[in-house]
Amino acid sequence: MENILLDYISKFMPLSEKEKEALLAFDMFKTFKKGAVIFKNRQIPDNSYFIIKGCIRCYYKIEGEENTTAFYTEYEPFTPQCSITENPPEYYVSCVEDSIITVATPELVKIIGEKSQRLRKLGQILTKENNAKFQFSFDEYKIYTPQQRYLKLLKSRPDLFQRVPQYQMASYLGITPQSLSRMRGRILRNTN
Amino acid sequence: MENILLDYISKFMPLSEKEKEALLAFDMFKTFKKGAVIFKNRQIPDNSYFIIKGCIRCYYKIEGEENTTAFYTEYEPFTPQCSITENPPEYYVSCVEDSIITVATPELVKIIGEKSQRLRKLGQILTKENNAKFQFSFDEYKIYTPQQRYLKLLKSRPDLFQRVPQYQMASYLGITPQSLSRMRGRILRNTN
Repeated sequence: MENILLDYISKFMPLSEKEKEALLAFDMFKTFKKGAVIFKNRQIPDNSYFIIKGCIRCYYKIEGEENTTAFYTEYEPFTPQCSITENPPEYYVSCVEDSIITVATPELVKIIGEKSQRLRKLGQILTKENNAKFQFSFDEYKIYTPQQRYLKLLKSRPDLFQRVPQYQMASYLGITPQSLSRMRGRILRNTN
Repeated sequence: MENILLDYISKFMPLSEKEKEALLAFDMFKTFKKGAVIFKNRQIPDNSYFIIKGCIRCYYKIEGEENTTAFYTEYEPFTPQCSITENPPEYYVSCVEDSIITVATPELVKIIGEKSQRLRKLGQILTKENNAKFQFSFDEYKIYTPQQRYLKLLKSRPDLFQRVPQYQMASYLGITPQSLSRMRGRILRNTN
């Protein structure tokens, strides 16, 4: 569990043994059951999460319908949506599978940053990395058709299709479950 | 020009006269002509921009077609897309109007941060604010239909419709110019 977090961090900044110890001394690892809602609206603002194991889903409830906007799985960090408009739709983050997640509260991030300038710098690097990734996802979503999005996802995150129910996947791709089913059939016929 | 920047900053952190002077001592204000490309692919990576006056557009060129992903106007900060995938499509940021923009290079941000801990903190606050705004835009784009997007944009940024060509606006909303035209006609008929 600890190694997964440290492996991920080492891609951005090699940590000394002392720094690793300092980081792991904090109680950050939490377990959640499949179906558990780990965040709702602004209930717990500003926490940062990192998935050690499992799969979580972000979605909005609009007129009883669930609109899925994101999935996060192993080795992915994420920060939940903080609403910036009036009367935003209901927002949820819940577990698609039993999950182990590190949770860093703003207080904890502050304490870690005060303890070590390098760990503070690490936080900034990770934030920047995530933002670049996120921004590119947005652009990709806008510039590609649902079929292009589907093919790209199939290539970049094939495991998602085994882990996530079809109706959630369709919503994530911005289409109906029926359209997703037809699209899959069409692509399968063309590749056989 | 300077006041616009300082007014914007004061929403997040009140600056002392000395801090204002320190910030304005840097040569950050640049002017660009309508049509000028201010960023292309990874040409000038990691600069941060803030629009004092004018309008800029971000777009990708795919098979000769321009796919518009964002517009920024007065008092809006933005950071251009840095590609994180292999062979990304051609990416551009260009001026829809004559524009005045502050440009902060990573070197400049570093120097400002070293000069004042509070100004470094300010940079972090602005980054966080922008990310929250950006993340919410992404979710909004995903969970609403083109017509809902159009109505929301009409309410939140009515000036854009006067400043931006229709084909760019249609691309930004994720529809064809013909669909946008039909949608406008339909909405107009229903409100009269």
